[in-house]
Amino acid sequence: MEVKKLEKIYEGKAKIYYRTDRDGVLIQEFKDHATAFDGEKFAVIEGKGYLNARISALLFRELKRRGLENHYVDDYDDKSHLVLELKMIPVEVVVRNIAAGSLVKRLGFEMGKAISPPIVEFYLKADELHDPIVNRYHIKALGIADDDTLDELEVEALKVNDALVEVFNKASMKLVDFKLEYGRARDGCVILGDEITPDTCRLWDRETDNTLDKDRFRFDKGDLIEGYRVIYERLLRVVYS
Amino acid sequence: MEVKKLEKIYEGKAKIYYRTDRDGVLIQEFKDHATAFDGEKFAVIEGKGYLNARISALLFRELKRRGLENHYVDDYDDKSHLVLELKMIPVEVVVRNIAAGSLVKRLGFEMGKAISPPIVEFYLKADELHDPIVNRYHIKALGIADDDTLDELEVEALKVNDALVEVFNKASMKLVDFKLEYGRARDGCVILGDEITPDTCRLWDRETDNTLDKDRFRFDKGDLIEGYRVIYERLLRVVYS
Repeated sequence: MEVKKLEKIYEGKAKIYYRTDRDGVLIQEFKDHATAFDGEKFAVIEGKGYLNARISALLFRELKRRGLENHYVDDYDDKSHLVLELKMIPVEVVVRNIAAGSLVKRLGFEMGKAISPPIVEFYLKADELHDPIVNRYHIKALGIADDDTLDELEVEALKVNDALVEVFNKASMKLVDFKLEYGRARDGCVILGDEITPDTCRLWDRETDNTLDKDRFRFDKGDLIEGYRVIYERLLRVVYS
Repeated sequence: MEVKKLEKIYEGKAKIYYRTDRDGVLIQEFKDHATAFDGEKFAVIEGKGYLNARISALLFRELKRRGLENHYVDDYDDKSHLVLELKMIPVEVVVRNIAAGSLVKRLGFEMGKAISPPIVEFYLKADELHDPIVNRYHIKALGIADDDTLDELEVEALKVNDALVEVFNKASMKLVDFKLEYGRARDGCVILGDEITPDTCRLWDRETDNTLDKDRFRFDKGDLIEGYRVIYERLLRVVYS
């Protein structure tokens, strides 16, 4: 059954969502745009949207195969997916297995230090406030989610982490940290949405600790497309085997 | 029994601790020094140490009377207390009943908005990192405290909040927010330490919302001593009645 792309309903920094003629199903398109540091650094990098779409599809399908429900329905074209329409919870759930980024800068952790059990963090999705870190009390006071939902987010994010750590390890990479976003389906169920790509994960080569993810763009640590291609090719070798 | 003051063992921004000839008991002296914004703003304000010592003693005694254990043993002199020696947990526990400070600036809450149930926050005590906000996962990964201890800190801080809100309300003030620090006694018990003063609480007049606490110094909102004196006198009228 062919799906028809209808009007654009939301455009963010890295993705566009379109309505379709299928009720409850959207098209999620990955853009070639790269931004960092609250939009201060910006570039259009040809091929990024394609690679992100490929990687996100692989990972969402793999999670589904392992019983971890998510919004991915099917590929739509080279850089777009069909996804379930969710009412997004405006919180980013970050899981950290190795110290990097704000854990080093803000909290003084030693760069590269293994963290076990992993750290889970919540950030408020609010551009004008620069996505501040929040705790459960803040989220509840803001009326965004209750304790049961937050329990569910933590438990689900840690399950996704277990699965992804295993997948990336098989693919000779370390999953340093990553960000997830959840939403509610029409029946009220909490479902994983958004994307899982090198834009939203820190991924290091398992042997050399070389950065393969968007930190290449953020900190001029090498060609972004080359890193994303390595990630995609390595994943392709393991997720269907 | 007289207690002898021995050597200084710690001097902070607002207090000095001395060893005494009584095993496990220290002298806690309140300084006249006022600092704000990570030490950028600084002044010596005569009478502040005295008023803080009076206010902290009143409040710690009142908490004890209500069954909430803490480190206060007795007055030592006009601006010093005898306190139990604790091994401090390097975390600040903040409770918020009304939006002000970082809740407004960092998280976009409307100034003065009532928050019910109250918000509890943990901050890492680390000058060089400017006391960053942390969640339970960070505290556990840093090896500072386990979940049971953090549960205890939250429960105890909320009990202290209930008591203090009632006391300040009777004394015609609103307890906007405040900071507590806990430590472990020799038997391992978690005990409330540090101070409860207008340096560590936001207190507003119940009718006018006028600031009576250290925000007078931080934001040049009026004479600090005058505010602290109002707080002390109002408390005196209610804590023994």
